[in-house]
This record gives sequence, C-alpha cells and structure tokens, in this order.
Amino acid sequence: MTPSSTTTRIRTALIGATGYAGFEAISWLLRHPHVELTGLWGPENETGPIEGFYPLLSKQVALSQNVFDADKVAASAELAMLCVPHKVAMSYVPTLRAAGLRVIDWSADYRLTDPAVYEQWYCPHTDPDGLAEAVYGLPEYFAEQIRTANLIANPGCYPTCAALPLAPILAEGLIEPTGIVVNAVSGVTGAGRSPKPQFHFPERNESFEPYAPGVHRHMPEIEQVLATLTGRDVSLLFVPHLSPMDRGMLCSTYAAPAVDGLTTERLTEVLEAAYADKPFVRVRTDVLPATKYVATTNFCDIAARVEKGRVMLFSALDNLTKGASGQAIQNMNLMYGFDETMGLI
Amino acid sequence: MTPSSTTTRIRTALIGATGYAGFEAISWLLRHPHVELTGLWGPENETGPIEGFYPLLSKQVALSQNVFDADKVAASAELAMLCVPHKVAMSYVPTLRAAGLRVIDWSADYRLTDPAVYEQWYCPHTDPDGLAEAVYGLPEYFAEQIRTANLIANPGCYPTCAALPLAPILAEGLIEPTGIVVNAVSGVTGAGRSPKPQFHFPERNESFEPYAPGVHRHMPEIEQVLATLTGRDVSLLFVPHLSPMDRGMLCSTYAAPAVDGLTTERLTEVLEAAYADKPFVRVRTDVLPATKYVATTNFCDIAARVEKGRVMLFSALDNLTKGASGQAIQNMNLMYGFDETMGLI
Amino acid sequence: MTPSSTTTRIRTALIGATGYAGFEAISWLLRHPHVELTGLWGPENETGPIEGFYPLLSKQVALSQNVFDADKVAASAELAMLCVPHKVAMSYVPTLRAAGLRVIDWSADYRLTDPAVYEQWYCPHTDPDGLAEAVYGLPEYFAEQIRTANLIANPGCYPTCAALPLAPILAEGLIEPTGIVVNAVSGVTGAGRSPKPQFHFPERNESFEPYAPGVHRHMPEIEQVLATLTGRDVSLLFVPHLSPMDRGMLCSTYAAPAVDGLTTERLTEVLEAAYADKPFVRVRTDVLPATKYVATTNFCDIAARVEKGRVMLFSALDNLTKGASGQAIQNMNLMYGFDETMGLI
Amino acid sequence: MTPSSTTTRIRTALIGATGYAGFEAISWLLRHPHVELTGLWGPENETGPIEGFYPLLSKQVALSQNVFDADKVAASAELAMLCVPHKVAMSYVPTLRAAGLRVIDWSADYRLTDPAVYEQWYCPHTDPDGLAEAVYGLPEYFAEQIRTANLIANPGCYPTCAALPLAPILAEGLIEPTGIVVNAVSGVTGAGRSPKPQFHFPERNESFEPYAPGVHRHMPEIEQVLATLTGRDVSLLFVPHLSPMDRGMLCSTYAAPAVDGLTTERLTEVLEAAYADKPFVRVRTDVLPATKYVATTNFCDIAARVEKGRVMLFSALDNLTKGASGQAIQNMNLMYGFDETMGLI
Repeated sequence: MTPSSTTTRIRTALIGATGYAGFEAISWLLRHPHVELTGLWGPENETGPIEGFYPLLSKQVALSQNVFDADKVAASAELAMLCVPHKVAMSYVPTLRAAGLRVIDWSADYRLTDPAVYEQWYCPHTDPDGLAEAVYGLPEYFAEQIRTANLIANPGCYPTCAALPLAPILAEGLIEPTGIVVNAVSGVTGAGRSPKPQFHFPERNESFEPYAPGVHRHMPEIEQVLATLTGRDVSLLFVPHLSPMDRGMLCSTYAAPAVDGLTTERLTEVLEAAYADKPFVRVRTDVLPATKYVATTNFCDIAARVEKGRVMLFSALDNLTKGASGQAIQNMNLMYGFDETMGLI
Repeated sequence: MTPSSTTTRIRTALIGATGYAGFEAISWLLRHPHVELTGLWGPENETGPIEGFYPLLSKQVALSQNVFDADKVAASAELAMLCVPHKVAMSYVPTLRAAGLRVIDWSADYRLTDPAVYEQWYCPHTDPDGLAEAVYGLPEYFAEQIRTANLIANPGCYPTCAALPLAPILAEGLIEPTGIVVNAVSGVTGAGRSPKPQFHFPERNESFEPYAPGVHRHMPEIEQVLATLTGRDVSLLFVPHLSPMDRGMLCSTYAAPAVDGLTTERLTEVLEAAYADKPFVRVRTDVLPATKYVATTNFCDIAARVEKGRVMLFSALDNLTKGASGQAIQNMNLMYGFDETMGLI
Repeated sequence: MTPSSTTTRIRTALIGATGYAGFEAISWLLRHPHVELTGLWGPENETGPIEGFYPLLSKQVALSQNVFDADKVAASAELAMLCVPHKVAMSYVPTLRAAGLRVIDWSADYRLTDPAVYEQWYCPHTDPDGLAEAVYGLPEYFAEQIRTANLIANPGCYPTCAALPLAPILAEGLIEPTGIVVNAVSGVTGAGRSPKPQFHFPERNESFEPYAPGVHRHMPEIEQVLATLTGRDVSLLFVPHLSPMDRGMLCSTYAAPAVDGLTTERLTEVLEAAYADKPFVRVRTDVLPATKYVATTNFCDIAARVEKGRVMLFSALDNLTKGASGQAIQNMNLMYGFDETMGLI
Repeated sequence: MTPSSTTTRIRTALIGATGYAGFEAISWLLRHPHVELTGLWGPENETGPIEGFYPLLSKQVALSQNVFDADKVAASAELAMLCVPHKVAMSYVPTLRAAGLRVIDWSADYRLTDPAVYEQWYCPHTDPDGLAEAVYGLPEYFAEQIRTANLIANPGCYPTCAALPLAPILAEGLIEPTGIVVNAVSGVTGAGRSPKPQFHFPERNESFEPYAPGVHRHMPEIEQVLATLTGRDVSLLFVPHLSPMDRGMLCSTYAAPAVDGLTTERLTEVLEAAYADKPFVRVRTDVLPATKYVATTNFCDIAARVEKGRVMLFSALDNLTKGASGQAIQNMNLMYGFDETMGLI
C-alpha cells in the first residue's frame, strides 16, 4: 500500500488483452517506464501470441495470452488489469484479491455501488464484498481513495465523458440536476471486436444512428457519479449514437440554468477552476471539442456555451484511452505513487 | 397556374448547377418523365460542360452551364430552380418573376417571412415583394399554397428534418413549445463544394464535432415553421454537428412532455396519423432512423420515444435529396399537378 | 424468343434478393418501365418483407421474399434473375429452364465454359447441359448471342472491369497477351453481407490490403473472356485489394507493348473506336477513372497511358451496378428487345 | 561527429512543424528520452503556438513556431529536422550547415544524387556541395554512412515502401531489374495539409483513384536507391493511387523472375535473411501487409508471393512515420549513437 519507489517496475497482468481496449492498453503499458507486463490471460478460445490477434504488435511484444489461472496470475504479478466482460470480471476478482493482487477492473461489475441498481441493469451480483470496497476510478475526483485502493472500478467511457463537464457545473449549482440530456456519439470500436451484422463495414460506413436511447446501461452510472460528487439527486437522459469512425466519443449535453444571468464565461471559469491542476482535462476556449483533437490521447476536452437560455456542454475523449486503458493507467499511477501522467503523454 | 396536362414536359432551368445540391438535382430531373432540363446557368467562373464539374455525368447529360442571363433563361424555360447562395438568389428572383417564370428558390432568401429576422441572421433584404408572396415549400404542410405558388422558398435541410417530427407533436399539444433541443448531425456535403481547411479530408475523416451551437441560421427558420404550423410561439436550441460521411442528416430532438402519461405509443400514433397519406415521411417502428436508410432517397424517417419523462424524436433524411433537390422536385410536382412522387421513387 | 413489344412488362422473379447486389437490383428494377417484379425468392432463413432486410426500401416496395419454389416462380414469372451463391445457382437453373423461364444467373456457375476449369476453382459441376448453352453476358461483346439466349451467365465484377479495357487493346495486337498484371481494388460491399471478423468496421476502416493475390477465382474468368475475344491464349496475374469504402472497383492493368512506338494516343483511339457505340463504356481523356465517377451508375470508365515503355490501363465501375445488377438489366434489355440503356440512366 | 553519450539530450530544431509530418514528428520527439525539442521554425504565415495548428497538442507541448532564422536556430540547436517543401529546403541547408548544425532534410532536395535528374523532375539545384555530401537516410542500408553524416536526405515515403522489399530480391538476382511495376496506394495525409478541391472531404471519401501514373517524382528516387544497392540499372514503372483513409501506404510490386523455379519460400528466405537484424522491417508470413497493421508505427511490413510465374511483393508502412518522421528519428538515433529504436517503439 505504501507508494512504491520510482525505480520499481510494477509486475502487471493484463486479463482479457484481445479486446480493443486491452490491445490499446498493451501499447501504453509497453511504453510505461515503471511497468513490467508479465502476462496476458484470457478465456480458452482466446489464447496464443498476441500478435496473432493484432498483427500490428509483431516485433513489439512477444507475449502470448494464456488461459486465465488465478494462481499463475498471482505468482507473476502484483497488479491485475481486468479487461473482461461484466459478470466474468466479478467471477475473477475475489480470487485475485484473495491472492493479494491489487485489481483495476474495466467492467461494470464494481461501478454501481447499489447492488439493486446493478442487478436492474445487468445481472445478479456475486461479489458484494468487493463491491463494498471498490473505489470508482475517476482520478479527477477520487484520487485520494484511488491511491490506497486495492480494487478500482475503472469508469465507463460514456460516464467519464459525460461526468467530467457536468460535475463542476452541477456542484456549483449552476444548472438544474434534473432534465439534463446527454446526447453522446461514439466510434465503432466502442462496440467491441465481435463481428455482428450491425457492425459490418457496409452497414456502418456512411451511416449515423442512435441506439438504446434512454435505456443504455451507462445512464445509471452517470447519474450515480454525479450524485456522489454533488450530493444531490441527478436525473438525466442518456442517448448514444454511432458515427462511422474507429475511435473517439463526443457528448453534447444540454441543461437548464439554475441561476439567473448565467454566461458562457461563467461556466468556463468554473470549468477552468475545477480542472486547473488536472493534467488530462483541457477546458477549450480556442476550439470546440472534436474527436480528432483527443484521438489516441488520454485527454478529455471540454467546452461550455450558453445560448437561448440553455446550457450546452461539449466533451470529447478517446473511448479506448481516457475511456478505458489510459484511465486505468492513470489510476495505476496514483495507486503506486507515480506521477499521474507517467507513460501517458 | 392551371395544372398542366400529364403529357407536358416542364421546360426547366437550373441555376447554380455546380454545387452538390444542383448536381443531385440534375440526376433526378433527367429521370423525371415530365421535365425537360433546358439549361444550366451560373456565375462567370463556373461555366462549361457540367461533366467538367461532375465527371460522373459524362454520357448522361450533354448540358453546359452558361453565364446567368435572365432573358435567356426566360426564353428557354417556364420554371427556374435556383440553387445559388442567399443574397445572389434575391438578386435574380425579381427579374425571373417579371419575365413570367415560376421559381423554386433553394436559398434562405425567401424562407423567413419577417424581413427583420432575415436581416438579423443574413443581410439586408432586397426583395420584400417577393418575400411577401413566397410560399414555404414544405409539401407535407403547405401543399395547397404550393400548387398555385409562383415563388417557392425551398426549406433548409435542417429545418425539414427538425420540423417534420416536431410539427404534429407540438400541434397536438403533447410537448412544451419551449426548451426544445434539436441535436443535429450532417454529412460533409452539407458544407458545400468549396475546399476549406476544416473540410480537408484528413481534418474531417475520423472526426466528429459540433459547430455553431445555438447560433446557426437554420434555428429561426425551424422556429418560424413550427410557430406557423401550431399557432404558438416555439423556442428551441439548435445544435449542428459534422460526422465523417458524405451525405445524410439525423436530428435527435428532446422535449418536455406537456401532458401526463405520455407514451411512446401515443407519440407514434400521432405521427402515424399525421403522415399516413404523406408519401415521403416514414414513421418507423421497426428500426430507429439512420442516415443509411434514407441515403439517396426523398424520404424522411421519423421515430419517437418516451424515456425518463422526456420525449425523444429522431428523424433522418438525405441532405441533398429531401433536404434540397428532391424536396424541390416534390414542390414542382405539386405546382404542375403531377403526382407528388413523380420522378422521385 | 421474339423480341417483346415495348409495351410489355416482363414478369421478373428475383431469387436471392437479400444480398447487396439483389438489393441494388430491386431499386433499378422498380424504376424500369418494362419490368414487373413479381416475386422475391430465397432460402428458408432469408424470408419475409424485403424492407425487414433493407429498411431503406420501406414505402418503396411491398414485396416479401418467399422460400424458393421453382413451380411458384414459373407460375409468376417469365424471367428469373438469380442472385444466389455458386453451386446453389446450378441446383436451381435446370428446373427453372425446364419450366420455361429465361434465366440470368449472377453466380459463377455458368461463366467458365470448360467444366474442368470450373471444378478446379469451385466444385463439381452438376449442370453440364446448361453450361454448354449459357451465353456470357458481357453486352459490349456478346450482344447478338444475348438477344436470343435463354441462360445468361452474368459476368463477375472484376472480370467486367478488367476485360473491358483489355479486350480491344489485345484484339488489336498492341500488347503482349502474357505477363499482364491486373491490380484491382474493391469496396467492401464486394465481400457480401455476412459479418466476418475481417469485414468488421474497425478492421476495415482506415485499412488497405491485398487478398488472394494471384489465386482469386475471377482470374480464370478474365483469361477466358479475353481469349474468347481475341482468339489467343491470355495469361494474366490478378491481384485484388480492399479499400475502406462501400462500393466501387478500380483496375490498374499493366502490360508490355507488342508493337513499337505505342503511344497513349494510339491506345485511346483504339478504345474510343471499340466503344464509340457502347452506351455504358466511357473512354476518359478528361480525368483518370475514379470510383466516385461511376458510383451508382452502370458505366465503366476507361483510360490508357504509355509511360516508360509500359502500357497502363485504368478502369472503374460500380461493383453492385455494372459489376452485377445493372449489367444483368442491360442483358435483360437485350434479351427482350428493349433499348440497352432502358431503366439504367 | 563522435557518438554522443547516452545521457545527452540532443537539442533539436524542427523547421516546418505545421505540416502533417512535422506534427507527427513532434509527438515522437516529445517522447524520445534523448531529445530536447528547442524550437519550431517556419515561414511567416505559419507562426504561433503549435497547438493553434494542432489542437490535439494542447497541454502536451508549449512550443510556438517562429519565423525561420538560421542564426537563432543555430544558437538553440545542434540538429535541424527540416520538414519544408523542396526548393525551400536547399535555401536553408547551406546556412544551417555553415552554422555547424547537422541536418536531416525531409524534402527531395538532397535525395537525387545526379543534379541533372533532380532538375528534370523538380527545379534548378542551388546547393551542389550539399548534394555531393548528403547521405541517403535509409537506415536499413546506409547505417554506416548515416552515423557520421552531417546532412541526411530523409527518403520519400513511396521510395522507402517500394525499395525495402525490392532491394534484397534484386540484389540476389532473383528478379529482372527492368519491367518492374510498383502499384502504390496512399492515405490522404500524404497529399499535405493545404485544402484543394481534389482533397475536399466529399471528393475523396468513397473514392479510389490513380494519379500521376508513371510520372510521379518519386519514381527516379526509387530507381536510384535500387541501382545504388544492387549495382545494376533498374527501371520501374511507379503508379500511385489515393485511398479514402488518413494514413498508411501499400505497395503491390510486380516483377519477372530472373531464375528458374523461384518460389514464395525462396523469396521469403531472402527477405528474412536481409532483415533479420533490422528492427523496423517485418517479413510477414502470418498475414499479408495491411496499412492497419503498421498505422502509427515505424514498421515496414513485407511479404512475397510467386504465382503464375510472376513475383509479387507487398509492403506497407505509415506514410507519416516510417515514411517521414519516424525514419528521421531512426536516422537521428544512428547519427548520435543511440539505439536505433529509441523513442520509436
């Protein structure tokens, strides 16, 4: 639990490396000066040299993904990055923790603090103890808890993108906590690596469309983190869309002002104050956020506008980086006492 | 003014054929059984064989674009399709009308009925007489006036896409007429054919971003048409975005219910009733609207949802067809007594 | 067999309408003034309203695809457009022909005249009689036979694109018939509608790559048609690639001159002479062929160059139109005595 | 000239940082452990904070591009990376060298050793002395000269991609040195950052086309490097194409075998022997090269095939990395005695 010396290399296991976020993590972890990636682990039907799944990694990484075995993971690592689907994650976590590993879980299994809410959106929860101890890994707000945590729930990509602009504005009481609309757009890597008819190239290319409007599982997670941060009930409508591009995410968020005379300038000041010392949040006054400006980085770009008596917040991040792998590494940096940006810029 | 016999071919001049919407119009007009495209006209720096601008048209159309000359247009045509920028349009229209032509203008010059509003968003208006007579060419609502009109203001792409789902729901009093948010997304042809840094391929590809949020010129046009149709003041926030694709437009519209117990089913019924006999509006209950489902067609697809106490309306159309050229032809069909779908399916 | 009166509507059955080429065919057939699309037929797991497969077709076509039944097809149609995979096609054709239908088959089953060659690249051939009678449906060269044919082998997309520029140049003896390289590029609709890992959006987007280099099944078909047209043995290397786009195909063909002093001008003259009266081949001297210039049309664009003692031929077409559905309709027009371009421009 | 100690940070000036390759270089240089990027320099109309040109760089790099001034560059740097257009480069290089800087020039100005050839393809050459001393910076072949060079001509993207597969095969005498065809494909960043009609998003998206076939300026550069490496005259036809994607390049190269019984295996062995100890060339036997497998890396992937008596070579690289910035850094690593891969993996 003591912050490690900066000369240490954290022996890290990546579990579920063959998904797009796991793949992205490998590239970042290989460059991190204080990480030793000691093994890749996954299900039986996803084993073998990682370059067999991602030919880009040839001559860069010699690791193979092996069948997950908690004992072997424990013998070779002190930290587990868990990039497996929900439900699978909570079947691995108790064993890994019992074996003494610190865990950063990228699934939804430890994000929703109320098991009843989790079960409403996902499935029965099988690790209530883990859930009770897990820390929500949004480093801009929970850095203190993250530093000493043994189990991190790495936030969802949409919740990160939606919460970062909303949190300080809500906390300051500048907008109403109800009636918020988050209109979100994602690149197609967000849908995962499994081929399905709707993600077949000729179906997605040149098409833009909404999906799961108002019924997406990330909606309760966004509400929860905002409620935690502001101490108020927050109710919002979350509406994701798919855009024909590989990566990137943009939230256009609409809210009603809660104070008179609210201006773009005032919102910008509040955002700038909130994120002045946060290395990965950029409050933009030069350009509006765009996915291209954050692609392959760990930044979340934010801007605010007031027009026609409504508040608009725009936020963009890379769903595979700040939305998954980069955020996990940012959490790891905090957990081990490294500079928060280490290996990420 | 008398509806033409169905054996007639309307001698039609296309003015400003070298833009993307003009190009699209050529393809449709060539297929129309009751149109004779007698000439293409444009500014001095945009003349010559149309296939020089659009190599796709080679061996399909032998026309050249000539320098605009109202007398020559009048001598060769009874109908002018005007696809030139605002301000240019109103400098041509009076002459064309004086020469006896009926005009369908695709610019913004005759869309905003109040010259003061026009001048706030565009520039001084130089044809108030034309403005007073012009009919807003949204065929689903103004078919009667369109039939006998001599000057049609062909609606903007965004206003068409935004107004079609909102109009019947507002008219029925099911949503509040204020606080509406229209989050819109367009393909890049919507930005025109002039190369600019922000539309350079490597800048747009793999990028999604908002532009002109809450300050786009189509906002007052949307409000005006909805106010006209419902008899109530309508105030909405319009926020366009660009998606990396050629064509297509999708509006995700959010509103507060004005009645208790509003359901998806009720909204759908109202939409279905409103558009049951409208050939180019499809109320979708099978899929959510997507740009791919309307690409290269004159359809506008619409769907409604109620979730978390908010109303969502989704609408999609092809910005170059139902958003410009197809709508103009639909208006022409009405003006000349043809079947509304002639040449468009 | 007698050319039909131009007032006739050919009762046409489309078998295998749910693939991308079948879908494209529906749009064209609906617009054709002398076609009545009487039914869609397919395998058991691909039945139901066609708009269920292609939401774009809603309100345009009310047809459902039913389980293929030769008797029912025969009772409702005089012409069958067969868009099913090879092997399935030759299991349907004999029955359809026995029932008196004329057949345009889009598969490879009747393209290779030598069953031994067919069996080397595909599978055992089960309809040698059909094979012996089938006419290769490249209208620019076999129009006479097509007019009276009862069974048309509609050419492959790559063979059409490769053969059209090569045929006249080879026939004139201007290039060597061996050592030719056809470097071909296709959009992803060419790979069909079934989702597979390699066609998953994030795998194809932003990627360009070769596949099946020198071992693609269209290679012997290209060689055969060129040998037939020139009376000489032709040997070429065919190398396809995938480009991140929906549709379109471009062949860059390289050959050694067979005569001294060969020039771009001479090649262009030969091409222009060969295609002067062919409505769907455009010899371009204004621009080089590009997929965008032929997209959604039935044209094949061609250009020639001589540089550094080598001959280059470029050709582009839309793989779903001139490469499949449009070519089939062009064949149909010939078979029934209609103008070759009817319904296609 | 003496290899620097590995603890040194090379004070490096980047001249022309606002183009796509310069932008890419910034990202790599910032991560390099032995580089200090001391300044950005450019023409008068391209000055200011680099994040004004590339909003992605905000909070990552605080540098501004200043008007180029050789004295100021010399005062602040020992190495100049020159990413300016040809002709401009050779107007800067003599001054920079006179001031004692080592220079890596990314333009074509010092690549063609024969001034007459340069002048045939470009313009009069104004620095023959520099030309005489410059070393062609293809590290896989000229590492010895690069180590001590003061002026490096960083190779073109196409020449790197074309030469790497051809060089060992030609050197071994396995293919004929004449009649080679290099069919190349590039993403659109290869065309630079200036908006032009042909690179406007709607013109490039969904389009694939050839350009400058057989007359591109990189052709003589490819021939020269191959002649240098093999001691034989090499004549090839180079034909570039544009694919609708941001980055990446793929060469499909065709040649006649010069020996009997040549096989895929033999070619692969020769390639593997040639590149066994080259860190950035990957001879692929698992997959064919694809741009996605090399995107954002400094690798060049290579594969060979023999079919139908012809040799095929496929090679892929990222035009902005191994095709420009990464190769320059690889050269820098050699020049200063660092590990060749430093900062690049």
